[in-house]
Amino acid sequence: MSNVTTRRNVLRGAVATAALATTAAAPTEEAYAAAPGGSAGPSVGILLYDGYSLLDPTGPAEILSRLPDATVTMIAEKRGPVRTDTGDVAVVAERSTADVDRLDVLLVPGAGNRGTIGAMNNQSLLRWIRRVHQHTQWTTSVCTGSIILAAAGLLDGKQATTYWASAEYLQSTFDVTYLPQRYVRSGNIITAAGVSAGVDMALYLASLIAGDQTAKAIQLAVEYDPQPPFDSGNAAEASPELKEKALQLLAASQV
Amino acid sequence: MSNVTTRRNVLRGAVATAALATTAAAPTEEAYAAAPGGSAGPSVGILLYDGYSLLDPTGPAEILSRLPDATVTMIAEKRGPVRTDTGDVAVVAERSTADVDRLDVLLVPGAGNRGTIGAMNNQSLLRWIRRVHQHTQWTTSVCTGSIILAAAGLLDGKQATTYWASAEYLQSTFDVTYLPQRYVRSGNIITAAGVSAGVDMALYLASLIAGDQTAKAIQLAVEYDPQPPFDSGNAAEASPELKEKALQLLAASQV
Repeated sequence: MSNVTTRRNVLRGAVATAALATTAAAPTEEAYAAAPGGSAGPSVGILLYDGYSLLDPTGPAEILSRLPDATVTMIAEKRGPVRTDTGDVAVVAERSTADVDRLDVLLVPGAGNRGTIGAMNNQSLLRWIRRVHQHTQWTTSVCTGSIILAAAGLLDGKQATTYWASAEYLQSTFDVTYLPQRYVRSGNIITAAGVSAGVDMALYLASLIAGDQTAKAIQLAVEYDPQPPFDSGNAAEASPELKEKALQLLAASQV
Repeated sequence: MSNVTTRRNVLRGAVATAALATTAAAPTEEAYAAAPGGSAGPSVGILLYDGYSLLDPTGPAEILSRLPDATVTMIAEKRGPVRTDTGDVAVVAERSTADVDRLDVLLVPGAGNRGTIGAMNNQSLLRWIRRVHQHTQWTTSVCTGSIILAAAGLLDGKQATTYWASAEYLQSTFDVTYLPQRYVRSGNIITAAGVSAGVDMALYLASLIAGDQTAKAIQLAVEYDPQPPFDSGNAAEASPELKEKALQLLAASQV
């Protein structure tokens, strides 16, 4: 390939047209600005806070952004870049919590120790979560995000899941019954297990919002036919040594 | 929970200590600045460009950031926020391509039509990919990222995979043999299938870099025990109607 490659070349064949999905009309600035609460499709808000784990918000964002007419908005206390637990990567918060009080879907990601504790102790953040939750269709979490929902009082007397290594902490600290499942629905709250479980939860949520056929098509759209090279992701089947090594790798990677 | 929650409270129990992995020492600014090429662990560089698909870079980043002493750096032609195909989300590029010429691992994510064509036609970007590839231990791609590697001439005469709907385009346009696999290794180039396949590929890559036990521990660290609610992610088993719906959802979600 060289500089003779043009859009026309690439799209010439029927194959290529199917291959690289055609470009849709760009949404107007107005449509984007009106997104949280004002769109035809679901308004999905994902809360970022210092020290979240990267895949927790981005996996579900990838899935939920394919829902018809959905808007996915990253939200934090302050607009601008918000860094992950490793300190290496930042996703931009497009809106501040002060700007958002209505969402169809709220998602609270998890974090390492520092990030989870920081969010649990942030009373204004917890108040915002409670306020937004009053009007959501679905309030959701990934990983230790359920601990933050619990700290906000949203899980009192409910069943929930969380990161495998945080299960006992969740259950012993709050009035929550931990279920060792990939995701748990309790009324309009859906909690997911650790990190990658957010993708499975988001597909389930997509089916609740738009039906099974749309959720299945989204799964195909992101070619989610998981084939990990190992079968070591289930803590219930892992050796103590592997669990220890997993937690050590996490701790060493975090700032 | 209320404002009596403190770090001390949360970490009091042995359970909580194991639950929320303890905080490691923060890396120095010097260590971070020296990262690409100069770190004790692998320097992983992920190329962002306008219109990439969010999970393509972030799934592998989550996995590879847990490798011992790894640094993961988002790179683009210009530093700053780089928007995804939907236009809703931006990840920050910490370095510009002009600042980076050595990486242990290069990862090129995929994109929708607009983003893929834009990158394929960007000769300076392709030159940078070729230049960095000369010294990488591993050059990798997710989804249509393999089309960009092919456009850069890196896949000539090689086997590779790509997004299911782009397979015929890849094979008919370049001197590449498409293999319908989750990921394909050809020498030191590893290509992954669509979007979510980057997570599987990254675990495989982690095993090549740090051994099976470390890769297995990373899989547990991100609780990657996939249980999607449907079994619709394999294009080879999907109906024409579902494929069409998947491509329509993708197109409609993209700007």
